[in-house]
Amino acid sequence: MNAVARRPTLAITTGEPAGIGPEISIRAAWALRAQANCVLVGDAAFLSMTAGAIDPAIRLSAVSLQALRYSGLPHFGPDRIAVVDVPLAAHVVPGQLDADNGRAVLDILDAAIEGVQAGWFDAIVTAPLQKSTINDAGVPFSGHTEYLAEKTNAPKVVMMLAGSPGEHQPYLRVALATTHLPLKDVPGAITQDSLAQVLNIIDHDLKTKFGIAAPVILVTGLNPHAGENGYLGREEIDVIEPALKAAQARGIDARGPYPADTLFQQKYLKDADCVLAMYHDQGLPVLKHATFGRGVNITLGLPLIRTSVDHGTALDLAARGLGLADCGSMEEAARVAMHMVQARRAHP
Amino acid sequence: MNAVARRPTLAITTGEPAGIGPEISIRAAWALRAQANCVLVGDAAFLSMTAGAIDPAIRLSAVSLQALRYSGLPHFGPDRIAVVDVPLAAHVVPGQLDADNGRAVLDILDAAIEGVQAGWFDAIVTAPLQKSTINDAGVPFSGHTEYLAEKTNAPKVVMMLAGSPGEHQPYLRVALATTHLPLKDVPGAITQDSLAQVLNIIDHDLKTKFGIAAPVILVTGLNPHAGENGYLGREEIDVIEPALKAAQARGIDARGPYPADTLFQQKYLKDADCVLAMYHDQGLPVLKHATFGRGVNITLGLPLIRTSVDHGTALDLAARGLGLADCGSMEEAARVAMHMVQARRAHP
Repeated sequence: MNAVARRPTLAITTGEPAGIGPEISIRAAWALRAQANCVLVGDAAFLSMTAGAIDPAIRLSAVSLQALRYSGLPHFGPDRIAVVDVPLAAHVVPGQLDADNGRAVLDILDAAIEGVQAGWFDAIVTAPLQKSTINDAGVPFSGHTEYLAEKTNAPKVVMMLAGSPGEHQPYLRVALATTHLPLKDVPGAITQDSLAQVLNIIDHDLKTKFGIAAPVILVTGLNPHAGENGYLGREEIDVIEPALKAAQARGIDARGPYPADTLFQQKYLKDADCVLAMYHDQGLPVLKHATFGRGVNITLGLPLIRTSVDHGTALDLAARGLGLADCGSMEEAARVAMHMVQARRAHP
Repeated sequence: MNAVARRPTLAITTGEPAGIGPEISIRAAWALRAQANCVLVGDAAFLSMTAGAIDPAIRLSAVSLQALRYSGLPHFGPDRIAVVDVPLAAHVVPGQLDADNGRAVLDILDAAIEGVQAGWFDAIVTAPLQKSTINDAGVPFSGHTEYLAEKTNAPKVVMMLAGSPGEHQPYLRVALATTHLPLKDVPGAITQDSLAQVLNIIDHDLKTKFGIAAPVILVTGLNPHAGENGYLGREEIDVIEPALKAAQARGIDARGPYPADTLFQQKYLKDADCVLAMYHDQGLPVLKHATFGRGVNITLGLPLIRTSVDHGTALDLAARGLGLADCGSMEEAARVAMHMVQARRAHP
């Protein structure tokens, strides 16, 4: 197989058309064209117009889903970006949501999933979408991650964010045992069963999608100071410690529970492949602070590789015109997906 | 008044004698002797022996509490460190707790408080102590902060940690609305009244002890994404927003509630004097990660200036001998106390 064909082929779903998704998708694909076959998924006419406004040097080549189904993805070479055309229903006004385009945002995701399952793409990289637009279009929708899980029959997924805190510090990966729950519902959602599933998924995916032979997972406590021997809560003793012992018995190198406030220091992180935090605001403030807006969201537990930006649609920024959005997180999401594709190929 | 007399005079309480407290107190006092009158509070014979083992050049001069009461603190000059002698009851074995010395650890604190009230000291800087030793000595004790609050009749105190994340990033101060509570008890502890008290204390102390004329306080939400308009919890709408409106009406520049995961980024922090987090593990992981073990614990709401290290007694390290402990947090605690003393003097 030649070098171009061996390059990872990434489907970049361009997300909510009125947000910054189309711009950052185009910029990231163009920046990485020498390293990956980046395939934008979205409305070809709208993306061509947007690309021309960003930089007339950017060259796009559209292909229809019908053509893909008939003859697979053509080779475009590193001087242009392929676009799988998924037409929008309505004219796009940057910054203004339009429920008429809600269905097309889902069609984009469906095309990307179909393409991975058909072997056209090695991974999916998603630009942000707006949940409300899809709901306003009459389709019940609770988020990218949940949608991908349902469409691929994944029983459980785990949200992980990753990024580099700078060259002198260890690369940081933070997975979450619970995600978008009111804080008062978090303690009840942490069970031995849920932790077993989460630890299995993290261990499996770090091995098979990241190529880490023997992953070390550091696990936080639920309570301050990891409960301080039961004085500040008993969940560590009653739930987390037994779950870690059981995971260790299954051959998973999960350690803890450790106090979250002291765990995120270089002396502990340097020997870890991943931190498992118990909830959203215990793990993500430090990740996002440390990675300076270059964090990448990775969904573990799916039968496919999916990475995403760690920010939203930024409608206000999109309304002010092109050239203002930072495509750093999107580029990094594509780069992480590339590395994951390569690691999975190397996995026996 | 001459320059030496105008230098801040800091009482450094040396904490649990079997831990690293004595060593880091001596090292920090010696390192800062040109900038501050550092007065160690502890067993003079034990501290002299320890200082001699650290560096024979370190010179200590002991003074008794009786002498202080009679004639105040003598001037020692910047070539030596004063020690207020508070004798221990038992021989110290590094790393081994001894309840016989529990009472002396409290006597050290009492001497420091008396000294601030008598005007001998401008501020208290505390090395770590071990709660269990004091309890084992038969004295109910729940922590440094609570003890200082009770002894000085402070109705409520607020824990704040501060530190520098490096020269290109804004100085970080993180205060907590709740501290050492099991996570399940946090939502119930956040009330409009408690937030009003906390915001009043932060605003008052930033003005009077830090010399910040118009402090800006950024406040996190309780839930992920600050509740996402009520979809992920209602405490923002029902409790935090009304508390912020009420504080603003009192002239306090408290803003929010903001999602905790995105708030700790340079673009937001650069215009803030303090972040108020709702609970321990929402605010401290990022502070401790960012400040590399150089964080300082500051108690707001006391009628005196008190700073502390952000770590524990490290008995295991103390057992292995001198020279292993990092006195960075202790030095920084003393430095912050110095700046606060100077800011308070400048406050009209």
